[in-house]
Amino acid sequence: MTRLYDDPATFTEDMVTGFVAAHPQHVRRVPGGVVRSRPARAGKVAVVTGGGSGHYPAFCGVVGPGFADGAVIGNIFTSPSAADAHSVARAADRGAGVVFSFGNYAGDNMNFGLAVERLAREGVRAHNVVVTDDVASAPAEEQAKRRGVVGDFVVFKVASAAAEEGYDFDEVVRVAEHANARTRSLGVAFDGCTLPGQDHALFEVPEGRMGLGLGIHGEPGVSETPMPSASELAKTLVDGVLAEAPAEGGRVTAILNGLGATKYEELFVVWGTAARLLAEAGVEVVAPEVGELVTSLDMAGCSLTLTWLDDELERLWLAPADTPAYRRGTIESSTSDVEVEDVVPVEQEVVVAPEAGQATSGVVAGALRAVADLLRDNEDEFGRLDAIAGDGDHGRGMTRGSAAGAEAAETAAGQGVGPSAVLLEAGDAWASKAGGTSGVLWGAALRSFGDLLPDDREARAADLVAGADAALASVQRLGRAELGDKTLVDALVPFVDELRAAVGEGVGGVAAWRRAATASTKAAAATAQLRPRTGRARPLAERSVGTPDPGATSLALVLTRVGELIERGGEDQ
Amino acid sequence: MTRLYDDPATFTEDMVTGFVAAHPQHVRRVPGGVVRSRPARAGKVAVVTGGGSGHYPAFCGVVGPGFADGAVIGNIFTSPSAADAHSVARAADRGAGVVFSFGNYAGDNMNFGLAVERLAREGVRAHNVVVTDDVASAPAEEQAKRRGVVGDFVVFKVASAAAEEGYDFDEVVRVAEHANARTRSLGVAFDGCTLPGQDHALFEVPEGRMGLGLGIHGEPGVSETPMPSASELAKTLVDGVLAEAPAEGGRVTAILNGLGATKYEELFVVWGTAARLLAEAGVEVVAPEVGELVTSLDMAGCSLTLTWLDDELERLWLAPADTPAYRRGTIESSTSDVEVEDVVPVEQEVVVAPEAGQATSGVVAGALRAVADLLRDNEDEFGRLDAIAGDGDHGRGMTRGSAAGAEAAETAAGQGVGPSAVLLEAGDAWASKAGGTSGVLWGAALRSFGDLLPDDREARAADLVAGADAALASVQRLGRAELGDKTLVDALVPFVDELRAAVGEGVGGVAAWRRAATASTKAAAATAQLRPRTGRARPLAERSVGTPDPGATSLALVLTRVGELIERGGEDQ
Repeated sequence: MTRLYDDPATFTEDMVTGFVAAHPQHVRRVPGGVVRSRPARAGKVAVVTGGGSGHYPAFCGVVGPGFADGAVIGNIFTSPSAADAHSVARAADRGAGVVFSFGNYAGDNMNFGLAVERLAREGVRAHNVVVTDDVASAPAEEQAKRRGVVGDFVVFKVASAAAEEGYDFDEVVRVAEHANARTRSLGVAFDGCTLPGQDHALFEVPEGRMGLGLGIHGEPGVSETPMPSASELAKTLVDGVLAEAPAEGGRVTAILNGLGATKYEELFVVWGTAARLLAEAGVEVVAPEVGELVTSLDMAGCSLTLTWLDDELERLWLAPADTPAYRRGTIESSTSDVEVEDVVPVEQEVVVAPEAGQATSGVVAGALRAVADLLRDNEDEFGRLDAIAGDGDHGRGMTRGSAAGAEAAETAAGQGVGPSAVLLEAGDAWASKAGGTSGVLWGAALRSFGDLLPDDREARAADLVAGADAALASVQRLGRAELGDKTLVDALVPFVDELRAAVGEGVGGVAAWRRAATASTKAAAATAQLRPRTGRARPLAERSVGTPDPGATSLALVLTRVGELIERGGEDQ
Repeated sequence: MTRLYDDPATFTEDMVTGFVAAHPQHVRRVPGGVVRSRPARAGKVAVVTGGGSGHYPAFCGVVGPGFADGAVIGNIFTSPSAADAHSVARAADRGAGVVFSFGNYAGDNMNFGLAVERLAREGVRAHNVVVTDDVASAPAEEQAKRRGVVGDFVVFKVASAAAEEGYDFDEVVRVAEHANARTRSLGVAFDGCTLPGQDHALFEVPEGRMGLGLGIHGEPGVSETPMPSASELAKTLVDGVLAEAPAEGGRVTAILNGLGATKYEELFVVWGTAARLLAEAGVEVVAPEVGELVTSLDMAGCSLTLTWLDDELERLWLAPADTPAYRRGTIESSTSDVEVEDVVPVEQEVVVAPEAGQATSGVVAGALRAVADLLRDNEDEFGRLDAIAGDGDHGRGMTRGSAAGAEAAETAAGQGVGPSAVLLEAGDAWASKAGGTSGVLWGAALRSFGDLLPDDREARAADLVAGADAALASVQRLGRAELGDKTLVDALVPFVDELRAAVGEGVGGVAAWRRAATASTKAAAATAQLRPRTGRARPLAERSVGTPDPGATSLALVLTRVGELIERGGEDQ
């Protein structure tokens, strides 16, 4: 279990502080993560990795010459925000664009996707290479749905070495995707890990049993079996990965990775047999790694990753690197001679809105403050709901996000901007501070809703319908959840439907909102009957039946509170 | 817990097989351990590390240019044998002698000490640098009694870099001892580790508590405290090490080391505060390491090591190295161009003994075979006794050692050599296969006893007394145990005393032996009342009260069985 921490709420911050203090030669801190302490030469394509933390040396441990230019650091097992990814990318960019590479998880896809969009708006070329190496997480014909696990390490390394060699943007993307297409992993778990400050493991594997294909955050696996011997496990892993080989025989590189509590000596015992089995299968292994490259705190388990090499991939895999946690050969430094440059923040232009828009801004900022108070008061309850099937951080995430959103909204409203600008600022701040999947969805929903609010007149009922429609559309585009998947979509769709229906019947905006909030509350309660479509470990998904979804519950509560506020606002006027 | 293994009895062998398979560029296997895959240039002083395994990357993970020339690999937490150390040293020697460096543990001191003596007899210069950095294991005025923990890593690195730079033998020894004198460590443990194939942890720390100063094999610590926060722990470690500083302020290098289950993120959180506290104390930190450098399987805990640097130590610490688990900078390879040379085994000359000596050899070989059978039949019982206060491997060690001893004795007797040569071979084989402390003691006892047996006439009662006296002397010289320390000495001293008394009274050799064996059996049983002088964790030392010492018990059983055999031999004649 994770035993050493000061405040669980600042664990990741504290970790980064110590990490940067230990490795000042390699990394420096920027908002959202770290970049190389000395930037690469101008004109080099930047490779930025990232994701939730708790996987050291992935991802911040591989920043340095020959490897990544930067790493975006989320909270433990939680996607960093789009603002984090954007910030690190801006600091890492050397004028030739930024290739993000990360494992295939919903929150990361959303946040890095938003960062790419924002960078594009700013004229910075950016692209996401999503790693999908875990053969246990989806069938071969749905490779794009597979999770990214230790294959991350190979893909990052290859892409980074290509950029170091002087590949242009398109070529770095090509070779990174090529490496991903030729990489397969299969993992097993023997015991879950605990998050800082928690008493219980995030998930459990029964004693004497092994979860085959269990994800590194406890996502569902393939099966549960009795604990095998080291040789049996080697055979399971080698057979499982070779069954998905993209090529016959050939040359591979291999990573036998320990997740944290499965130690080096055990890994070497397994590797002894795995190396023999690979040789017997006619597979030549080049420069394997046996150790801890992608951990999950103190999780017990290991995985085998094979990447089928061609001459290009082999050269890039063997290329030198010099980072805090991974060094190989002699790096002909690509470091520039320039001193560290501070990232010039992009100045936002303040456009003062007409009086009607400023009035709406005031209502919006007041509502966000009230929502923040409401969520803070309910933090424990949401945490309790989330702990049943998740990692228990929903309450904290909502509190942090809404507080930051309210503060940003108040500041913006104080500058006299209109409601769309207020909600843009509030959404960015919310997503940035909340982190994770719900943070990015709330941030996007606020921004999309705000886009449809007029700056030059009072908002009408039809504006609310249009805004709610837009918010739902961005939540579904980013989150890819459908009705019935036990997410906040289950409370948002009934809200939008009822709002549209009521306004269509001629009901006023305030009354329509309240009717819609009631429908949302009912629907949120009904999520108790559902099972999550994709959840964490299967036992937890089962366990969640009978408990309403925390995301749907908090959404309905917020919508109800906003309804009360705009009604009172209406009465006041 | 250690979950992955095939046969616990061959765990270390299997681990080395996988390790060498993963790192053929760095290491090759030799009897007793590994050496660099390409030898260093001729004339370089060889630095050889070693000890029990279970501490990866210590010790075999740091073999390579810039670091060690070889590592002697014992079984888990068990000293390698003198033959292992000798073998690795011969393979690593490049004509300028061998500096062994290892942590201060009884078994390692004995076995490396014997290896140095044997190398000296063969004309190879050798010296032991014993690391004593653990401030919790003995007071400052008894520094030589302190255990070696993570300070090993610094001392090995500095000595290796000095040898790489071309220091001569005396200078490598000088700088290694200088590094040890300026190195201090303090460690804590939160939970014990389990050995392969065992259900229970080797020792335990109660939940929510911390063992301050607990050794990496569970040796007694300073105190037990409630679990601190990360900041409190940082302060405890920094204050504890600084209290023993050999210099005011100054420059240090630091290692914040995780023992296996205390993970990188936690270590970085602790390091953030430790780095600040060191700076506040006016201590400048150069190139610290935060990670897993000396583990104890999956033990939970960590330690802080500081080495006060001068210009020489700083240069050597920062010097490049290229090994499986530790790489730094660019190594100007000191590797020779020669292909790997096989070690030429030292041929033993066979000296055929007169008939009387050959007859004694036959009796000795027969007795050793009977002893091996006896010990095999009692393996479980000795394992059970040892599990109460030790690591439960006494039964297995005795079975392996005695079987190897019997086989070597039979081979030697078949060649017609005398009893001293038979017991020399048997002792070497026993020590080599049994490993650990009892292995080296039994090996030395057999050799010393054999030295006093005549080759040219029948052995007499006085020869037995002289042989037993010599065996006791070597056991006490090597093991440094006194009567009452709850070791095999408690059964050996009464045996020798009674044997001498009986022979002095004119009793014949066979009857005197039986009387002495009876005294030994009684004394072995009486060890149940004793507490070990130095044991493993304090709770285990306490727990052993009421149980006889397994080493004393097995010795008395063997002496009794030998008495029966020589009596029957006498009757037969």
